[in-house]
Amino acid sequence: MSAVTTADLLALDRAAQDLLFRAARTANTFTDEPVTDAQVAAIHDLIRYGPTAYNGQPLRVLLLRSPESRARLLPYVSSSNRAKTASAPLVAVLAADLDFHERLPELYPHRPQARDWLADRPSRAEQARFSATLQIGYLLVGVRAAGLAAGPMAGFDAAAVTREFFPDGRHEALLLLNLGHPGPDAWERRLPRLSSEEVVWTL
Amino acid sequence: MSAVTTADLLALDRAAQDLLFRAARTANTFTDEPVTDAQVAAIHDLIRYGPTAYNGQPLRVLLLRSPESRARLLPYVSSSNRAKTASAPLVAVLAADLDFHERLPELYPHRPQARDWLADRPSRAEQARFSATLQIGYLLVGVRAAGLAAGPMAGFDAAAVTREFFPDGRHEALLLLNLGHPGPDAWERRLPRLSSEEVVWTL
Repeated sequence: MSAVTTADLLALDRAAQDLLFRAARTANTFTDEPVTDAQVAAIHDLIRYGPTAYNGQPLRVLLLRSPESRARLLPYVSSSNRAKTASAPLVAVLAADLDFHERLPELYPHRPQARDWLADRPSRAEQARFSATLQIGYLLVGVRAAGLAAGPMAGFDAAAVTREFFPDGRHEALLLLNLGHPGPDAWERRLPRLSSEEVVWTL
Repeated sequence: MSAVTTADLLALDRAAQDLLFRAARTANTFTDEPVTDAQVAAIHDLIRYGPTAYNGQPLRVLLLRSPESRARLLPYVSSSNRAKTASAPLVAVLAADLDFHERLPELYPHRPQARDWLADRPSRAEQARFSATLQIGYLLVGVRAAGLAAGPMAGFDAAAVTREFFPDGRHEALLLLNLGHPGPDAWERRLPRLSSEEVVWTL
């Protein structure tokens, strides 16, 4: 099946397909054009409608805007990610609220007992990580929906970042995210993707 | 900030915002209109461009098309999800390939040693779950991009489904997904969402 035929099977128009997926790339350099709080709020206002288990919405986004907060992060970032993390207009720590169940009586009001189903901390933490990671997927799409480039980075010391920025023990850092407009030489070449024949199976 | 103002801060047009997030809902009933293999391939062809760690793309999608395969799933689905799982035109088991690192020399060719960095099974499995869950986030957006309703379900016995459908020990079931066109009374009322003031913090 050609790419054109495949793209035409979707309800989403081609320009939006390109903006969110086909032409979108992980940026490695950024211009110094700022990313505003209003843009971040607009992105969240869009992606907050994505589904999560129990409607728990455990994702928390910590924006590191001050030079001091950025300096606290850098020692925990892998050497290959440090330069871009230092120069991105905005860096966010994406984290899970491991005690998200406390809000369930309000967020999942038709089953107020759901909070009690999640009383066990280890299994609740697993649920929190899972739903927050789903939300990070929505968030990366949302950053692109705002016309911005996203630079997700898994290469960092997550336990150390959790201790540094979430000493309450309630939150856990999952991913770092650079946000901005792509700068010079922002892109590596597009890496190969698996075909649906390789990853979609039928029984 | 009003919803109209927020939506206007995005590059993505309002119709696409609605299709993917604002008007999209988790469907609880479906019509009997089928979901074709071509539609699933088109969805995957779009969302496969979403970023994953090491470009590892560990998500695998098992479509249960035969009545026999559906019958094998149903005993492991929570009672509240059983009726819709039995009646959806298509049900998928979304799983992580815990040995995704084997493909890295091809998928991440500029650092062929990445396969060896992931030699440790437990930490590799954690990476596989994380990236596959990100990809599930992209996939749920992609299902909506195809004009279909998605019904993600976390209420099932994941360990039993893994044993039933992936006896190789290489894959792990993460989520079930019903796909189709929404049927009568498909929607619960929209549950409340957290505001950006509640979940986006600044340092």
